[in-house]
Amino acid sequence: MMSFLKRLRTSQKKSGSLLCIGLDTDAALIPRHLGRSAGAVLSFNRRIIDATHDLVCAYKLNLAFYEALGDRGWRIIEKTLEHIPRGIVTIGDGKRGDIGNTAERYATSLFDELGFDAATVNPYMGYDSIEPFLRYNDRGVFLLALTSNRGSRDFQRLRVNGRPLYERVVQSAVRWNAKKNIGLVVGATHPKELRRVRALAPEMPILIPGIGKQGGDLKSAVLFGCTKRGDLAIINASRSIIYASRGKDFAAAARREAIKLRDEINRCKNI
Amino acid sequence: MMSFLKRLRTSQKKSGSLLCIGLDTDAALIPRHLGRSAGAVLSFNRRIIDATHDLVCAYKLNLAFYEALGDRGWRIIEKTLEHIPRGIVTIGDGKRGDIGNTAERYATSLFDELGFDAATVNPYMGYDSIEPFLRYNDRGVFLLALTSNRGSRDFQRLRVNGRPLYERVVQSAVRWNAKKNIGLVVGATHPKELRRVRALAPEMPILIPGIGKQGGDLKSAVLFGCTKRGDLAIINASRSIIYASRGKDFAAAARREAIKLRDEINRCKNI
Repeated sequence: MMSFLKRLRTSQKKSGSLLCIGLDTDAALIPRHLGRSAGAVLSFNRRIIDATHDLVCAYKLNLAFYEALGDRGWRIIEKTLEHIPRGIVTIGDGKRGDIGNTAERYATSLFDELGFDAATVNPYMGYDSIEPFLRYNDRGVFLLALTSNRGSRDFQRLRVNGRPLYERVVQSAVRWNAKKNIGLVVGATHPKELRRVRALAPEMPILIPGIGKQGGDLKSAVLFGCTKRGDLAIINASRSIIYASRGKDFAAAARREAIKLRDEINRCKNI
Repeated sequence: MMSFLKRLRTSQKKSGSLLCIGLDTDAALIPRHLGRSAGAVLSFNRRIIDATHDLVCAYKLNLAFYEALGDRGWRIIEKTLEHIPRGIVTIGDGKRGDIGNTAERYATSLFDELGFDAATVNPYMGYDSIEPFLRYNDRGVFLLALTSNRGSRDFQRLRVNGRPLYERVVQSAVRWNAKKNIGLVVGATHPKELRRVRALAPEMPILIPGIGKQGGDLKSAVLFGCTKRGDLAIINASRSIIYASRGKDFAAAARREAIKLRDEINRCKNI
């Protein structure tokens, strides 16, 4: 059984890419000619995956967009995952978090039933809400540390003994990481803080959303997000790639955007 | 359009009950004779609702247990909600929380599509992750403040300027409550802190899990959780009621437990 860390490193090495494409697929935003049904979302995802799978280390599925499809959402997730070539890391982005017996259910759904390689988890409820996910040695568990949105100021940056709360989350993550399967989420909108997080957790995967529409800085995301070996930063882009064109050329346009971003990332690595 | 606060008060007054039954229905724990299918979960829920609906002010559905049913889970939620008599408050307990455009999706799923009266939301990502839920004037949004589990110590109790983080969440909730549709979640396992939360938020609904299997103290949950008018505390019990018997008499046993607990709650109110 390959550890998550190893699997991620292998995927990044093989693809030569730190790019993760976020399949936040909104039935209302996909090209009109596909229609607006749940089936259209699946066709869209398959076409995007076909056009980009050699350019990415990971795909991230934002579960909210699939839940919005009602009872068909679950199957669309399953069928989308089936379409992603083995070796590429899949992240179930649901930011779950609940007491132990409930967290177990969420872990079962995401890891056993749907078969995601990794999941995002909200740390607010503490260790016993995270531990059921950590039992899966070979899966990654990305804890929200400092998120990309404005609201990250409201609580995540509050000072606890002179240090911001999100650093406390990072320190706990390092302490809880006996199985080397914890990762962190830090928004590209916070470059200085990302650097600090990388210093506190030198060998942890960091999922970095917030470039593109959210305005985060790519260069610092890459420079500060990577380990000394130049990996384990996962640079996520969703809307800027998957909606690059709303016409019949959407898949080709997504490929062009993904190549551009992958190459920009790699140039940043070599500065 | 009746406000959530009004709706909850009406339901508590009409039922003469602060009890909320948690339908955390686990296919593996329901009576054997029903089977283990998703359909069995629905039959179980319907029987529990038939047997208890005159005893409660609310039902809470823990979404993790339905997600664990895969693609049928969504329909089981819909059909369970259809079976709950109008006027009884329904709470979708998913503890969601994400950036604005994603939180919108979760709110749409829970409020528009499934039609829950209220939802639980994780506050860690701050105001813009909560605001899409708050737009629904007539629905309740329960923010996690101090949860019932052990892990509540890890972050929720950390001191921020001399006060615990969860108090900061409560203060923010009071500030953000322009539409009077915010509620709080405080575990019955923290009686002193519940009293303090009620003082900070004298007119907010407080959802109180953690009695029963989790060991919280009922008397203080009721005394400290209620407003001066003696309402707006929602005392949740799940496993101790729905699994009161594993035999064919499960519905009658659930009714007995629910009556017992409702009456105990009402006795505590009158101390």
